[in-house]
Amino acid sequence: MSFLPVPREPLHRVAVTGGTHGNEMCGIYLAQHWLQAPEELRRASFSAVPILANPAATAACRRYVDQDLNRSFTLTILGSTATPNDPYEVTRAQELNQLLGPKGTDRAFDFILDLHNTTANTGVCLISEASCTSFNLYLCHYLQLQNPGLPCRFLLYDPPGTETYSLNSVSKNGICLEMGPQPQGVLRADVCTQMRALVASILDFVELFNQGTAFPAFEMDIYRCIGSVDFPRSSDGDLVGTVHPQLQDHDFEPLKPGDPIFKLFSGEDILYEGDSIVYPVFINEAAYYEKRVAFLKSEKFQVSVPALPGLTSSSPVAP
Amino acid sequence: MSFLPVPREPLHRVAVTGGTHGNEMCGIYLAQHWLQAPEELRRASFSAVPILANPAATAACRRYVDQDLNRSFTLTILGSTATPNDPYEVTRAQELNQLLGPKGTDRAFDFILDLHNTTANTGVCLISEASCTSFNLYLCHYLQLQNPGLPCRFLLYDPPGTETYSLNSVSKNGICLEMGPQPQGVLRADVCTQMRALVASILDFVELFNQGTAFPAFEMDIYRCIGSVDFPRSSDGDLVGTVHPQLQDHDFEPLKPGDPIFKLFSGEDILYEGDSIVYPVFINEAAYYEKRVAFLKSEKFQVSVPALPGLTSSSPVAP
Repeated sequence: MSFLPVPREPLHRVAVTGGTHGNEMCGIYLAQHWLQAPEELRRASFSAVPILANPAATAACRRYVDQDLNRSFTLTILGSTATPNDPYEVTRAQELNQLLGPKGTDRAFDFILDLHNTTANTGVCLISEASCTSFNLYLCHYLQLQNPGLPCRFLLYDPPGTETYSLNSVSKNGICLEMGPQPQGVLRADVCTQMRALVASILDFVELFNQGTAFPAFEMDIYRCIGSVDFPRSSDGDLVGTVHPQLQDHDFEPLKPGDPIFKLFSGEDILYEGDSIVYPVFINEAAYYEKRVAFLKSEKFQVSVPALPGLTSSSPVAP
Repeated sequence: MSFLPVPREPLHRVAVTGGTHGNEMCGIYLAQHWLQAPEELRRASFSAVPILANPAATAACRRYVDQDLNRSFTLTILGSTATPNDPYEVTRAQELNQLLGPKGTDRAFDFILDLHNTTANTGVCLISEASCTSFNLYLCHYLQLQNPGLPCRFLLYDPPGTETYSLNSVSKNGICLEMGPQPQGVLRADVCTQMRALVASILDFVELFNQGTAFPAFEMDIYRCIGSVDFPRSSDGDLVGTVHPQLQDHDFEPLKPGDPIFKLFSGEDILYEGDSIVYPVFINEAAYYEKRVAFLKSEKFQVSVPALPGLTSSSPVAP
């Protein structure tokens, strides 16, 4: 497991995006609030830009209108010629790419923090693509130190294809802050307050980094997604059972071969048949039924992260 | 508070409906299961008919397609002349009225049990319109005795207008079984298993009633909906806060004047300004944001229910 090196320049162009999925309410209401009160996202060396990523889906209180926006930031989609019949999210992805990218270029934003909620009991989870830099590891470790009682997991998620497709992949470096459980369409004050505090901590960390703070070495457990498991279905594709009560709500806990994973409507238990322990994530997430995912499987391992020297005065200063 | 007298005839024509709202998953999957395995709904004196009430909304995993089906069973809608431009749920309500009604006639089903889920922490709740008979009280008391550890509340809900509009209002007598919390679009095995057992108990009770069982007198706490409270909003109608953490998840618990009900994004608490204790229900239900309802207010009172003699042999027998 190797990460790209941390950039040696301060991060000045930072965006905080909410409502990439239009029924994940914390990011939606926080983004709308910050659009009215942007000073909350201001630090000495930068001001993060709040963005409501999918306004049409937000207005409809649906994950998306035509297609999943957070799967729409491929270079193919972003580079396609616009037509009047484009799906809404294709048009919106191209707009956001103009605003925050273009993806893969020097003009792209330095960092996008994309806010999400899940119906699964993930707690606080930072999701990073493997193509990101180890900046994300230092960031996660900082949040863990700031919030000692709070499990704050780091999940590596590589898209099944060869290309990244998430909103935060548009920036030079980015991360997704995922928090659950929260039902779709519901804004829980406890989850929202915690997300707001974590965003503040993340911006504080960027500020420390920009100011030239050095960070010591550490070791950290991280999870890497290695596949998914579908619900039990009939030959017609209909569900014939659901997530087993012994698995439900146990995100990030070890699942051993032989443990129950599904309860069929017939009463029968379906057991996990893998060869080794995995760590299920996004267990029974509402949006994943249509993606044929009852849960993601991850493996857990420890990484040793070397000390990060502070940015030197020869680094470019804030514009 | 007075209820109509219990019918003195056995209930032979019974339906169990799920998916009246297409993203409340327990009733959907139970109805689909029973359509394949109807023997589970069979008792000696009757067989309940399973019905998937809103197939189009279920396929889209949305509460409704064009309008809320469970607000569409007014005599005005049911009696209107069908046109090709009718909203989907108007057409479907008329179809269900032909199948289970016509509402208000002797040909209507004796009993409809309509299955619902909520994102609110209601636990198990039976919702009855005041126009129903006291049969529903005996039924609720039976469930309470069968499940001593389980709060099983009885909520009287009178529609704000003068006319009933729910699916179960099509039958001569009916009730809604509401269970939460469960996110929209998610099927939790624990909630589903409990709903399935409660439906079995309800059918058992109907069977006991049909067989001529007498039921002793009892006293019971019931809740009556007396109004609703909207979220705090800006002059544009946007939310400026959400349900206070001290109120969230406390359905059916007393709310006193001066207790906090909302937390504004500014940090300020909004306190309850009523004159007396109320019992909030459906706190932060996802589907009620668009209805401008943060929670319903109910009052709690005790009813004394007299003994119910068994149906005599002079009552009509099973056909």
